[in-house]
Amino acid sequence: MNVRVVCRFLGVILFLVALSMTFSAAWAFYFHETQVVWAFVYSMAITFAVGIALLWYVSRSSEELLRKEGMLLVGLGWLLSALFGCLPFILSGVIVNPISAYFETMSGFTTTGATVLSDLETLPKGILFWRSFTHWLGGMGIVVLFIAILPQLGAGGKVLFKSEVPGPSAEGLKPRVSQTATRLWAIYVGISMAETVLLRAEGMTLFDAFCHTFGTMATGGFSTKTASIAHYDSILIEVTIIGFMILAGTNFNLYYRMLRGRWRAAPSDAEWRVYCGIMVAAIVLVTLNLRAQAIYRDLGSAVRYASFQVVSILTTTGYCTADFDLWPSFSRVLLVLLMFVGGCAGSTGGSMKVVRVSVLFKRAALEVRKVFRPQLATTIKIGRSPVSEERTTAILAFVILFVGIFAVASCLMALMGLDLATAVSSSIATLGNIGPGLAGVGATMNYAEIPLPGQLILSICMVLGRLELFAILVFFVPSFWKK
Amino acid sequence: MNVRVVCRFLGVILFLVALSMTFSAAWAFYFHETQVVWAFVYSMAITFAVGIALLWYVSRSSEELLRKEGMLLVGLGWLLSALFGCLPFILSGVIVNPISAYFETMSGFTTTGATVLSDLETLPKGILFWRSFTHWLGGMGIVVLFIAILPQLGAGGKVLFKSEVPGPSAEGLKPRVSQTATRLWAIYVGISMAETVLLRAEGMTLFDAFCHTFGTMATGGFSTKTASIAHYDSILIEVTIIGFMILAGTNFNLYYRMLRGRWRAAPSDAEWRVYCGIMVAAIVLVTLNLRAQAIYRDLGSAVRYASFQVVSILTTTGYCTADFDLWPSFSRVLLVLLMFVGGCAGSTGGSMKVVRVSVLFKRAALEVRKVFRPQLATTIKIGRSPVSEERTTAILAFVILFVGIFAVASCLMALMGLDLATAVSSSIATLGNIGPGLAGVGATMNYAEIPLPGQLILSICMVLGRLELFAILVFFVPSFWKK
Repeated sequence: MNVRVVCRFLGVILFLVALSMTFSAAWAFYFHETQVVWAFVYSMAITFAVGIALLWYVSRSSEELLRKEGMLLVGLGWLLSALFGCLPFILSGVIVNPISAYFETMSGFTTTGATVLSDLETLPKGILFWRSFTHWLGGMGIVVLFIAILPQLGAGGKVLFKSEVPGPSAEGLKPRVSQTATRLWAIYVGISMAETVLLRAEGMTLFDAFCHTFGTMATGGFSTKTASIAHYDSILIEVTIIGFMILAGTNFNLYYRMLRGRWRAAPSDAEWRVYCGIMVAAIVLVTLNLRAQAIYRDLGSAVRYASFQVVSILTTTGYCTADFDLWPSFSRVLLVLLMFVGGCAGSTGGSMKVVRVSVLFKRAALEVRKVFRPQLATTIKIGRSPVSEERTTAILAFVILFVGIFAVASCLMALMGLDLATAVSSSIATLGNIGPGLAGVGATMNYAEIPLPGQLILSICMVLGRLELFAILVFFVPSFWKK
Repeated sequence: MNVRVVCRFLGVILFLVALSMTFSAAWAFYFHETQVVWAFVYSMAITFAVGIALLWYVSRSSEELLRKEGMLLVGLGWLLSALFGCLPFILSGVIVNPISAYFETMSGFTTTGATVLSDLETLPKGILFWRSFTHWLGGMGIVVLFIAILPQLGAGGKVLFKSEVPGPSAEGLKPRVSQTATRLWAIYVGISMAETVLLRAEGMTLFDAFCHTFGTMATGGFSTKTASIAHYDSILIEVTIIGFMILAGTNFNLYYRMLRGRWRAAPSDAEWRVYCGIMVAAIVLVTLNLRAQAIYRDLGSAVRYASFQVVSILTTTGYCTADFDLWPSFSRVLLVLLMFVGGCAGSTGGSMKVVRVSVLFKRAALEVRKVFRPQLATTIKIGRSPVSEERTTAILAFVILFVGIFAVASCLMALMGLDLATAVSSSIATLGNIGPGLAGVGATMNYAEIPLPGQLILSICMVLGRLELFAILVFFVPSFWKK
């Protein structure tokens, strides 16, 4: 394990975190929030100082990142970003307890959107901006990491996250990391700007338009309003956000390919079609259930609220326009199941990803047919790409791990004395990077009432889910640390 | 598809079902329940008649059972046994609604133990005996089926249930089906007799001793008392039943091998050790949780109730001495997780089986190590037996299917208007053949309040779980029915 090279990259990451605080400081300055400006100044100073100390330690080492170092960097990068990113919350006095502040920041950087804050309208704008900005940074980080960096990292880069997307991940991307990263960054910024302009035009203030864009594009879910998107009660805004949530939950590789002239990249992508299929099916089912139980006066309202909530949960965003905890059991169970699916691979969406769920179902269906036709081949196909037996097993193992961690987390949360629905839904809502769950962590509630040890466990769930488990799990394998 | 040969075997099964009703009729006669005796006479007549009709149809065909016919027979065998087995309930007037009667009988034959009946003490003894006897028949059927018949069925018999036990399944068993079946039957009867004698000596009436033996040995859970085993409030009886539940959840193949002089077969069996390990760990955790929350006055009581409930749930029996629905969240979540594990392969226990859970965890742990050591081999070992990549994938696919069916069933039950805890726990309690769940189907409740379509869905869950999914799932694959 080459610690020096890891430190160098960590130093750079901390520089970037410090740098990104300037925007929030600027907003705080603009809104005359003197105390918050100082909180940012101190936070930046501390973060810069530690960053420099890390760089000092390595003194211009120029070694390459290898597999183990890469994994360590990814895991530590997120853990440290949240550690320094939570300074403004603490120093401004908005969140007094460090664990809650860490929870909030991790929720930001992992694009989860679970919050311990309430009465958002009374909070300093600078802090609200920082909170939403961590989403945007985290979302971009994930896209660049999973599409540009990981497939190219060192010799074994392509197998680093071998449970990752079969097929489209590397195809059509320029070989050089920095160039690919720049283009993805441009796409991300471009779509974000479009959303900000639209939301501004539809009546949001520029500040709110920015913050909600960050929350949407990162499939995060932090809002500047306590009532989330329901605050605006505007169909126009809801439709816009639905549209951009769907875009954010799409594989960014597809945009890259579409920009290069392959316009039919998205509609012809097997995963994207399943993603849309699940979305439409869930909207129809929830709408029917809402209508059957007469939850809303008319069909229009049922469709409106069903669409928003389904898209928000499936893309793992977590914005709300209705308190789905009051919906009938069927809709609630369905939404919880959607939490396990998540967005497309290579999107900012979290959870297990649509492509894995597809592999899962195809392999399971094959197994049923193989019972009476043992001679059938064990290879399955996603679109036109065959998925090998080994990759299939790896994906199944990922799913088992994911569900296993969910089960353990549910147990631990129950141990904190939470009721069943809260324990179970808070676990999947954080592990899947969604945000709101049911009961005690429902759409109109927040995570402030969760005991502090529980907030720490959920913070770990968030980073586990965001980095697709392995980058964190390897830390617990003793042989990972051996030379 | 050779329907004739399937019909011949189905005819034989119906003969056996009719024959087995005689014992219950005898008890009804002994207790002077004239109406019940007639109910049994009519039921036997109908079942015999249909059995003869089926045999008539085939007119002494002597063809071999092939793979597809075998699967059809297994699936239809259970479905038809429950159909004819529910006649005594209906004809005696104990259960008026045919769907509820079918639910109760399916719960019996699948050794689930979920009941729609209450105030058991007021019901005719003949009916109570039949109810418990269906457990015992179902339990024996499963042991013989999975250890003796399936591995030998036609050319492809060994792959028929390929997701079945790696390792011990076929080893040490005589090649001839009938001989193996007879020996397993002898072991099953022998252990049952021992339990009946013990329970009788400990103060149960002979009738109750029989019924509770049936419920224990089959890991079923039907009792003759509304309060289940709590009725007796006897530590002696509880310890006896705990012991026999553990025996019933053990692979019967191990007894077979021990009878042939390999005394260390059980303690040296990898699956059996994990089974005991899970049991001890769960008892310790639940005891600590109960003590921490001061649910019971002293440590002794906590150990007593924790042990019984943990063993009862893990072995998928479902007997109760305490209402675990009143226990703290942690214990309840843990018990629900145990419901997914179940007994050993080749036992009368249901659910996913310990060996599958072991494969699951070993493969998932391997996947984590493979992330930074891609050169690691993909083979895992259970004890000393290696499990191939293909078999591992098959087991993972089974688990995915199991969890998927659980999810779908939970959705459907929620659609019936049940609350979350009831919907979710009734699904796993029936799919895993346990019996009691949480909330509306908790230890002190029953399934009578579940809407009839829900009872039908849960009946399907029971038979799906009991036959390890595939024997029923193939019915839904169109190509299964093609020539």
